[in-house]
Amino acid sequence: MLQSTTNVLKNYIMLSSENSDKIAKIKDLDQIKQKEITISEYIFHRILQLGIKSIFGVPGDFNLKFLEHIYNVKGLNWIGCCNELNASYAADAYAKACQKMGVVFTTYGVGELSALNGIAGAYTEFAPLLHIVGTSALKLKRNPNPINLHHLAGNRKTYLKSDHYKYERIAGEFSVDSASLEDNAEEACEMVDRVILNVWRNSRPGYIFLPCDLPDMKVDSSRLQRPIELEYEIKSSLSKIDSIVDKILEKLYDAKNVSIIFDEFIRKFRMEKEFKALVEKLDNKVNLYSTTYSKGLVSELHPRYVGNYFGKYEKPVADLVESSDLVLHIGKFAHEINDGMFTFNIEQKKQINLSAQYIEIGEEFDENTNMMEILPALASKIDASKISESAKHVKPKTSYDLKEESGEPQEFPLMEQNIIKALNENIRDDDILIVETCSFLFAVPEIKIKNARLILQAYWASIGYALPATLGASLALRDFNLPGKVITVEGDGSAQMSLQELSSMIRYNIDATMLILNNSGYTIERVIIGPTSSYNDINSNWQWCDMLKCFGDVKSEKSESYKITKAEELYSTLSDNTIYNNGKFKLLELMLPMYDVPHKLSAFTSK
Amino acid sequence: MLQSTTNVLKNYIMLSSENSDKIAKIKDLDQIKQKEITISEYIFHRILQLGIKSIFGVPGDFNLKFLEHIYNVKGLNWIGCCNELNASYAADAYAKACQKMGVVFTTYGVGELSALNGIAGAYTEFAPLLHIVGTSALKLKRNPNPINLHHLAGNRKTYLKSDHYKYERIAGEFSVDSASLEDNAEEACEMVDRVILNVWRNSRPGYIFLPCDLPDMKVDSSRLQRPIELEYEIKSSLSKIDSIVDKILEKLYDAKNVSIIFDEFIRKFRMEKEFKALVEKLDNKVNLYSTTYSKGLVSELHPRYVGNYFGKYEKPVADLVESSDLVLHIGKFAHEINDGMFTFNIEQKKQINLSAQYIEIGEEFDENTNMMEILPALASKIDASKISESAKHVKPKTSYDLKEESGEPQEFPLMEQNIIKALNENIRDDDILIVETCSFLFAVPEIKIKNARLILQAYWASIGYALPATLGASLALRDFNLPGKVITVEGDGSAQMSLQELSSMIRYNIDATMLILNNSGYTIERVIIGPTSSYNDINSNWQWCDMLKCFGDVKSEKSESYKITKAEELYSTLSDNTIYNNGKFKLLELMLPMYDVPHKLSAFTSK
Repeated sequence: MLQSTTNVLKNYIMLSSENSDKIAKIKDLDQIKQKEITISEYIFHRILQLGIKSIFGVPGDFNLKFLEHIYNVKGLNWIGCCNELNASYAADAYAKACQKMGVVFTTYGVGELSALNGIAGAYTEFAPLLHIVGTSALKLKRNPNPINLHHLAGNRKTYLKSDHYKYERIAGEFSVDSASLEDNAEEACEMVDRVILNVWRNSRPGYIFLPCDLPDMKVDSSRLQRPIELEYEIKSSLSKIDSIVDKILEKLYDAKNVSIIFDEFIRKFRMEKEFKALVEKLDNKVNLYSTTYSKGLVSELHPRYVGNYFGKYEKPVADLVESSDLVLHIGKFAHEINDGMFTFNIEQKKQINLSAQYIEIGEEFDENTNMMEILPALASKIDASKISESAKHVKPKTSYDLKEESGEPQEFPLMEQNIIKALNENIRDDDILIVETCSFLFAVPEIKIKNARLILQAYWASIGYALPATLGASLALRDFNLPGKVITVEGDGSAQMSLQELSSMIRYNIDATMLILNNSGYTIERVIIGPTSSYNDINSNWQWCDMLKCFGDVKSEKSESYKITKAEELYSTLSDNTIYNNGKFKLLELMLPMYDVPHKLSAFTSK
Repeated sequence: MLQSTTNVLKNYIMLSSENSDKIAKIKDLDQIKQKEITISEYIFHRILQLGIKSIFGVPGDFNLKFLEHIYNVKGLNWIGCCNELNASYAADAYAKACQKMGVVFTTYGVGELSALNGIAGAYTEFAPLLHIVGTSALKLKRNPNPINLHHLAGNRKTYLKSDHYKYERIAGEFSVDSASLEDNAEEACEMVDRVILNVWRNSRPGYIFLPCDLPDMKVDSSRLQRPIELEYEIKSSLSKIDSIVDKILEKLYDAKNVSIIFDEFIRKFRMEKEFKALVEKLDNKVNLYSTTYSKGLVSELHPRYVGNYFGKYEKPVADLVESSDLVLHIGKFAHEINDGMFTFNIEQKKQINLSAQYIEIGEEFDENTNMMEILPALASKIDASKISESAKHVKPKTSYDLKEESGEPQEFPLMEQNIIKALNENIRDDDILIVETCSFLFAVPEIKIKNARLILQAYWASIGYALPATLGASLALRDFNLPGKVITVEGDGSAQMSLQELSSMIRYNIDATMLILNNSGYTIERVIIGPTSSYNDINSNWQWCDMLKCFGDVKSEKSESYKITKAEELYSTLSDNTIYNNGKFKLLELMLPMYDVPHKLSAFTSK
C-alpha cells in the first residue's frame, strides 16, 4: 500500500521546520538586549537569521542613516560595490550560490534605477533577491507641495509635485512583493517578514522601501524570537495532490521507455533533496537528461545520465529523448537558451511537466498546483518495481567530442575548444562554474560539469553579469561554509561593462579564477551580424594582466595574472593544485582568435 | 511707439528658420541617391541633419541590423561605450555641450534598462536626449503565444506571454514622447520626426523603439529634403503675449531697484541670444545675478554682475537680491541645488519668473505661456530709458575669498580650496567645466567661471556622471567646431562608478583634463553621516596614474597622468599652456585629506 500523502507532506513540512530551527540557531538572539530596537536593526536581524552574512550595495544619502545600524548587528558584513548594477549582479549570484537569498542596498532614484537591469535579470532568472532602498522622507512623500529634491525625477510639469512613488511602481514590474514602509511599527515589521517570505517562496526579487526619516523608528524586538518560517504554501488539498500523483504514476508504470529531464527549477526552488530521493528510488531503470541550465544537478558520471538535451543542436541526444514514450520533465524552466533555441520537440501527449507554477500531464494543464506540492509526494509514493527498465544508451558523443577525436590539427594555438577541454579536466567537485553570456556560452551544453555547479544568466543575458557574479558567488561559498571555488569564463566585451568590480576581488580577498577571453570585441555579435563592423570593436588594447595591480594589488599579494597564448599553458595553469589552492584571485587572459566560437554557436548562426 | 509684437515674433521665427537652413546645408543630401531608403538610414539622416556626428551606445543583437546601416550615412561616427549607463551620460553631456541633441543606442531590455538612470537624469535635468532602442521583432510582439525570448523579462506567470511593451511603458515615465515603430513606412517617418522635434522643444528625452525585424523597411527618402524645423510652438495669441510683456514692462518701469537673476533654462531652452539682447538693452542699469547652474552665462567680469545667488549660504549676495524691489528671474530652473538648498527667500509679490513651462508675475501664475514666447518680445520692446538705475554694488566677497585673504596658513599641502584657486586662475574662455556631484560640487557657487561654461548634473545627482560626460562634451566641441576644452572635477568614489569609460578617452583621442579627487572614499557622505563608517570607504589603493596605461595607452602617447600632492604642483600643471595644448587626455590625481570639503558643504551639513 502506498504511504499516505498526508504523511508525506507532514514529513516534508517537518523538514522545512528543521531548516527553520537551524536558521534560528545561526542567529545569536542574545545580542538583542533591548525590548525595543530600530526598524533598521530589525531588518538586519531578519537577514542575519537567514544565514546571510554579506550584503551588497552602494551608500547614498537616503540610506546612510539606515546603514549606520549595521554596526549594531554582529555578523553582517557590508560589501561596498563600485556601482549598483554590479552590486545587484553580485547579490543575484550570492542568492543562486547559497540558494537562500541575496540582499542589495541602494539609494533613492539614482541607485535603485542603476540596479534595475540586475533586478529584472533576477526576476527573469528566478533569483531570490531582496532589494532594500532608502527613499525620500515619509514627511516629504506626504507633503502636498512640490519640493524639487535631488534624486527625485522631475515632474512633466516643473511646477507640480513630483511623484515620490514612481520608482516603487517601476520596481513592481520586476518583483513579486514590496513593502513601502510607513510609521506604523508593527505593520512595518509584518511587511518586512512578508516580503522576505515571498522572495524566498517565489525565488524572485522583492523590495523594501525605507524612507530616510524612518531608520530610527522603534519596533518590538520580541518578534525576532520567531524566525520567518521558510516554507512553501501548500494550497492544494491532500486528496488533489494524491490524485495527481496517482495519475503521474499510472503513466510512468504504463510506459516502456521513460526519460527524465531534470531542470533548473529543481535547484531554484530548492527541491534537490526530493528530486534525489526520486532518482534514488528509480533504481537506475530510466534514463536521465539535463538541460543546459541544470547540468551537474545529477552527476554526469551517473550510470543513467545520457546527455544534455539541447534540441536539434545536439541531435543524437534529442533523438533519444524525443523517441521516448514518456518524458517526465522535472523543474521545467522554459526559455530560449534552455530550450535549445526553441527546438525542443516532444509530442505534447508524451510530456509530464512539473514546474514551479504549474503541472502539465499530457494535454492537461493545472496552474493551481506545482512541483513543490507534487514532487515530495511523487518521490515518496513511487514504486520502482512497477517501472519498465529503459534501454541503456551509450552517451552520445557531442560535436566537441567528435572534433577532439578527429585528430585534425587546430588552426590556432589557443581556441575556445581548448577551454572546454581545460574545464572538462579541471573543474573540481563542488566548484561553481559561471559562464558569461558570451560566445563561450554555446560551449556550455558540451562541458562535462560532473559534480560541480553552474551559474548562468543567459535567459536575461545581460553581458557584464559574470564578473560581479564571481564576487557574489565566492562570498556565498565563504559565508555558508560551502566547499568548492568559483571559476568564471568572461568575454572581454562583457568584462568591460562591469570591470571596476575586479577591485572588490582585491578588497574582499576573493579566491576565485577568472578566464578573460581576449578576442578583441563582441565576437558573439560578429558571428550574428557585422563581422568587421566597427560597432563590434572595443578598445582591444587593454592590459588585462595589469588591471589587478591598478586596482590596488601592487605587489600581487592577493592576485595573480596570467597571459595565456597556448592551449598547454591553459591546461597546466588550471590543473596546478598549488595555483588552485593559493588563496588568491587568479586572472587568466586568454589570447583568442577574433572569429573563433564554439561549434554550437556557428551551427545556430549559420541556420 | 513699441515695435509690434507681431514683427518681433516674425523675426524670431525667421531666425529659427535661418537655423533650419543652416542645418539643411550641413547635411549632404546628395548622398541620398535612391528614392527609397531604409527606415534605419532615414533615422540616421535625420540625426545628421541636426549637425550631430557622434552617436553613443552599445551594440546588442536587437540593434545590430539597424547599426549596419550607419555605414550608408557618411558623417556619422559610432562611439562605442563600455556600457549603456556610461553611454547615456556621455550623450547627455553631448546634448548639453552642443545644445542640439544627444543620441544613445541600446538593445532591448538589458541595454535600455541599464541606461535608465541616465535617461531619468536627462529628464530631470532637461537634456535633449534621443534614445533609440532595438526591440524584439514586431512579429513576436504581435504573436499571441508565449515565447520566452532572451532579454524579455519573464511574466509573473511563466506560462503566459511576456509583455513586450513593459520597457516602453517604463520609458514613458522619463520621456516626453516616444515612437514605437510598426510596419507603416510613412507613419514611422512621421513619428520619428515628431519625437525628434519634441525632444528638442522640451529639452528632455524621447524614445524611438525600432523592432529588430524592421531596420530594412523601405521609406520614401524625399521627406528628408525638408529638414525638421526646430522651432518652439507659439501657442499664445499675439495680443496675449503683448499684454503679458506690457505688464512686465510696467513693473520694471515702476521699480527703483530691479535685480535680474539669469538662470539655466536660458541655456537649456537656447534663449541666450534673446537674453543677451535684453541685457544689452538694459544698458548696465540693473544688477545681474547668476544661480549655481547658470554661472558663466553672463561673464563674471560684466560690470553689473554682482554674484551668485545661493540663498542663505551666500548671505551678502542674498541680502542684495532679496532687498531689491523687483526680481526678474529669467530661465528659472527651480531645484534643491540651484535654490541654495531651498533657501531662496524673495517675497512672492516682488517676483517675475520666466520659466520654460510658465510665467509668473507676482501672484499671477500662467502655465499656458512660457519664456520662449515672452522673452523675445520682452527683449525687443523694452525701453531702458524708462528703467531706474539700481545702485551699483561692489561684488561681495565669498567665503572662499575671505579665507584666501585671511592669510592663515592652510592645514594640508593640498586642499579643495586650492582647486578653487587653480580653476579661478586657469579656466580658459569657452572651456567647459564639469563638476561631479561630489564634495567639490559645493565649491561651484564660489568658482569664478568667467566666460567658460558649466555642466552639472547635481539635481539628479547620480555620481559617476562626470567621467563619461567628459567624453560626450569633448566630442560635442569637436563635432560642432566649438572653441574650448573640457575640464572635469571628479570624486574618487564617483569615478569608480563609471571608471571603464576612461578607455574611451584613449580610443577616441579625447583632449580634456580630469582632476580626480583622491580622498579615500565618499567624503561628501562622511560629512553627512558616518565619518568613519566602513560603508563610506572604497578600495582606496587604486593606482590612478596607471589607469590610462591599463586602458591601452601603454606609451602615454594619448594621455598624461600626474600625481599631485601640493597646491603649487596643481597651479603649475593647470597654468601650463604646453600641457593644456598637448592634445592629450590629462589625468590629475589630487591627493586630498579625507575630511576636507568646501566651506559651503560644512555650512550645510552642520546646520
